[in-house]
Order: sequence, then C-alpha cells, then structure tokens
Amino acid sequence: MPTVERKTSPPAPSTEELLAHVESHLAAAIDGAMEAPPRLLEAARHAVLGGGKRLRPLLCIRAALAAGGRVDEALHSATAIELIHAFSLVHDDLPALDNDDLRRGRPTVHRAFGEAMAILCGDFLLGLACATISEGPVEPLRATQELLHATNRMIFGQVFDTLGGTDSSAEADEQLRAIHALKTGALILVSCRLGGIAAAAPPAIVSSLDHYGIALGQMFQAVDDLLDETQTTEHLGKAAGKDRDAGKLTYPRVHGLEGTRTRIEGLRVKALAAISGMGPEADPLRQLAEELATRSR
Amino acid sequence: MPTVERKTSPPAPSTEELLAHVESHLAAAIDGAMEAPPRLLEAARHAVLGGGKRLRPLLCIRAALAAGGRVDEALHSATAIELIHAFSLVHDDLPALDNDDLRRGRPTVHRAFGEAMAILCGDFLLGLACATISEGPVEPLRATQELLHATNRMIFGQVFDTLGGTDSSAEADEQLRAIHALKTGALILVSCRLGGIAAAAPPAIVSSLDHYGIALGQMFQAVDDLLDETQTTEHLGKAAGKDRDAGKLTYPRVHGLEGTRTRIEGLRVKALAAISGMGPEADPLRQLAEELATRSR
Repeated sequence: MPTVERKTSPPAPSTEELLAHVESHLAAAIDGAMEAPPRLLEAARHAVLGGGKRLRPLLCIRAALAAGGRVDEALHSATAIELIHAFSLVHDDLPALDNDDLRRGRPTVHRAFGEAMAILCGDFLLGLACATISEGPVEPLRATQELLHATNRMIFGQVFDTLGGTDSSAEADEQLRAIHALKTGALILVSCRLGGIAAAAPPAIVSSLDHYGIALGQMFQAVDDLLDETQTTEHLGKAAGKDRDAGKLTYPRVHGLEGTRTRIEGLRVKALAAISGMGPEADPLRQLAEELATRSR
Repeated sequence: MPTVERKTSPPAPSTEELLAHVESHLAAAIDGAMEAPPRLLEAARHAVLGGGKRLRPLLCIRAALAAGGRVDEALHSATAIELIHAFSLVHDDLPALDNDDLRRGRPTVHRAFGEAMAILCGDFLLGLACATISEGPVEPLRATQELLHATNRMIFGQVFDTLGGTDSSAEADEQLRAIHALKTGALILVSCRLGGIAAAAPPAIVSSLDHYGIALGQMFQAVDDLLDETQTTEHLGKAAGKDRDAGKLTYPRVHGLEGTRTRIEGLRVKALAAISGMGPEADPLRQLAEELATRSR
C-alpha cells in the first residue's frame, strides 16, 4: 500500500466545521438556479436543508482528507452526493412508493407541497446534483460519471426493494445483500470513492476507500433495519416499523435481532480493516465507523 | 458570418438512415445498463422505443452536419436528448401531473407498469441521458453541462405550466412565451446547440443554430397548441383538447386560431433567417422548419 503524502498539514477540521461548509454549499447550489420558479426552490430547500445527518458528504470529505486532499477539493462531490440522496428521499417518500408523511421530523415534500411538485422537485435535485459535480475542480467528468453510475445503481435497488424482481432462487440473505448493495450501498460507496478521486489519490488508496465504503454501507443498512424494529417513530423522526409491516426483506427478518447485531459488529471490523494501511489522517473515518455502528437514530 | 468548412463531403444522409442510427443507439443505451432490474428495462424500452418523431435527435444531428460535423460525432448528444425527452414525458404523464393514459397511441408508462415504476423509470432515464452524453467524443463535459442546464429549464417550465407561479403582472402573451421558452423551447434549443458543439463549430455558427432553435421551439409549441384544438385524439395518438380544458395558457387561447397561424408563419420565417448565412449543408434544417410549420400530428 503506497503511503499518503499530505499536500498540506493543517489540523483536521472538526465535524461542525465540515457540516457548516456542506450546509452553505447545499444552499448555494439551490439558490444559484437561475430562472427557477420560487415555489420549486422552496420545495428544494425543504427537501435538502431540513436537517439530516449529512453522512454521505462527511464521508466524502473525510475520505478526501484521509487520502491527502483538501476540503475544498471534495466539496462539489460532497454537495452533489447529498443532493442525490435528497432527490431519492423525495421520490421514495411519494404515495406510489413508500408513502411516507414524515421525514426528519417534518412533513415530506409531497405532504408540504403536493405530489406534482415533489415529483418535479426530485427531478430538479437530480439534475442539480450532476451540474454541481460537473463544476468540481478535480477530474469533473470522471466524478460526474461515477456519481451517475452510483445513482442508477441506487435506483435499481429501489426498484428491487419496492417492486421485487430479484433472483428468487437465491437465499434470503443473498437477496437482502444484493438489494442493499444497490439501494443504500451504492451511494455510500461512491461517497468514499469520490473523496479519493477528489484527492487525486493513487488507485490502491481509492480501492481501500471502496472497501471501507462497501462494509460501511452494509453496516449502515443493518443498523437502519435494527432501529426500524427497536426505536419509536418519534425518536427516529420517520415512521418506524414500516419495512417490517411492508413485508420487506430486512436484516432482523432474515437474521433476527441478535444475528443482526453480530453482523453489524463484523462489518465494523471489516470497515476498519479496509483502511488499516492508512495513516492517522484516516482516524476520522475510523471514528465514523464506530459511531455508525452504535447510533440510535 | 464565418463560412463552414466540411471535414468530409459525403452525400447528406437520409432521414430514414438517421432515424435508424438514433433508434439503435437508444436501444443500446438502455440495454447497456448493467445490474438493472429486467422489469425496469422493459418500462424504459416502452417509454423510449415506442415510436415518436425523434425531432430532437434529428435536429441535433442535422445541426452538426450543417456545421460541418459528422453523424457519429453527434450521436451521443442526440441519444441523450431523446432520453431526456422520454424521461420528461414519463413524469409529465403521471396522475399527479398531466394524468395522461395515452402516448404515441399506446398506454403511458404508469398505465402499463404502475406509478411506482413510472417514477423510477423517469429517474433512470434522466441519469442514463447524462451518462450517455458524458461519454461522447467531443467536449463531453461541456455537452453534459449544456444538457443539464436545458433539462432544469425544461423542469422549470413544467412547474410553471402545471403549478403556476409566473409573473402575473405580465401580459398573457409574455407569460405564454416565458413558459414555453422553458418547457418546450429549452430542449429544442439545446438540440441545435449541441449539434454545433459536437461539430466543434465556431461561436458564430453555434449562435446561428441557437437562434434557429429558439424560433423553431416557439413554432413547434404554437403548432402543438393548434393541433390540440383542431385534431382528434385518434389522429394525434395522445389526448386532444386537454390543455384547453385544463385552462392552460395556449397560443389559440391567447391569439385565436388565425392569430396562431400568423405567428407560426412569422416564426418559420425567423427560423430560416437565423441560418440564412449557412450553406447548402443547412438545407435539411430549412426543410425541417417547413415540415414542422405544416405538420398535422
């Protein structure tokens, strides 16, 4: 594994600092849309700026820093990934899909602005994400293509999850992992990968980040499924117990609660192992894996 | 106006030849999607390959040829524009938007595959369009950005048209033109523009193509509104009279049938004037303007 040369050695920025950067870039991306109907921008702000963990942009920036890059080199990618995430939530929440009224403790976009606006708002955010990443400073064409690839994989996962169509001869565990590698995993993986690309990291480093991202994505989904079973709607800020009630394949349904906890622990170890060759600048990524393994919302 | 140097001088390809190229590239773009759920690809094929005039890809390729480029240089852009057009139809036809059951004489995607699939299929086609153009041979990053800009303008137009929000102090004619410059105009304009870009044409030629595209886009919409009033559903292959019944701003509503015909004639002349400085290689663009002015479906 090649060692990482830092271009600069400032102290690692705090999560609060990074979140402030992300938030202001998200707002600027929306407000920069010329000619847009004011009501559409309102809906977009509601969808994007209403809180949220910002896991994906944080992962992207932390991955870039771990690979020797700078925050500003990763911000276009980080912003674009969160816009894609927001678009997917707006469309997934629609009545024809998951039919959710609540997101981050507030009404979903179609509840607040109507279905027509929610459909068009999601479309707008998808285009805005691509436009944002295409203006980034490092290999923008490659970055745009990576993001598009991940976005389509995410959509494929949503189709399988909502409408079925996976290989029914496969074991339940295999189907579960296949769906989630697409639905949740693709975007978490590309967050890490785009951080490496923004840092112009060598292929071996990008590959380490990929493997970290794959394990982290699986772990994230397993924890999500666990919380869906064990936490209240009020605590989560979104409807709890829905996936179970909808008869979806979830980790607890396939492996039970204890089996899910065991898998989460295994994936945490796997994520850490993937970046064990990286130096102390990858510590925030290690910290993130710990936090995500034990989060309660 | 700089003269256009042709890189090669083969005889101009026939419309049938070009349509065959476009059709096979559209099919290849969809079928090239790895990991996609088979049912999603079926829905995408239904949306994209079910006939259609292919006006936008034809414009793009004809513009490229008029600017001295080659067919193969314009095919990625041409394909991507048609995928964007198809995505927009799939979402616009949804019950929450225009609620159309019929498109090109066949059931709309949500009627044939359900609403959830239609929403996700539109999302997929939007991403696929961007991925396709990003792999083009000439200035792919710029081309991708131009397409995204036009796509978002198209979405803005759909928001204004469906949900209102235009400047109500403006004259009806001004509002009408503002909506359609976005909703229909943006994609027709960028079709011509991307043809010029694919041909690596000098800015003055791209500007001529822009002005041709703007006039043609307005004319196209005026003819569409006229046909919506004067033709049957059976003849059009989509519901006639809907825009009038929905109380939308249309050319006949604002200018009457005769006033609309007068405007169509004025826009035809304007489109031809925009490319009057271009040579005989622009003749197919001139022919297209004539045909679109007098089309009956």
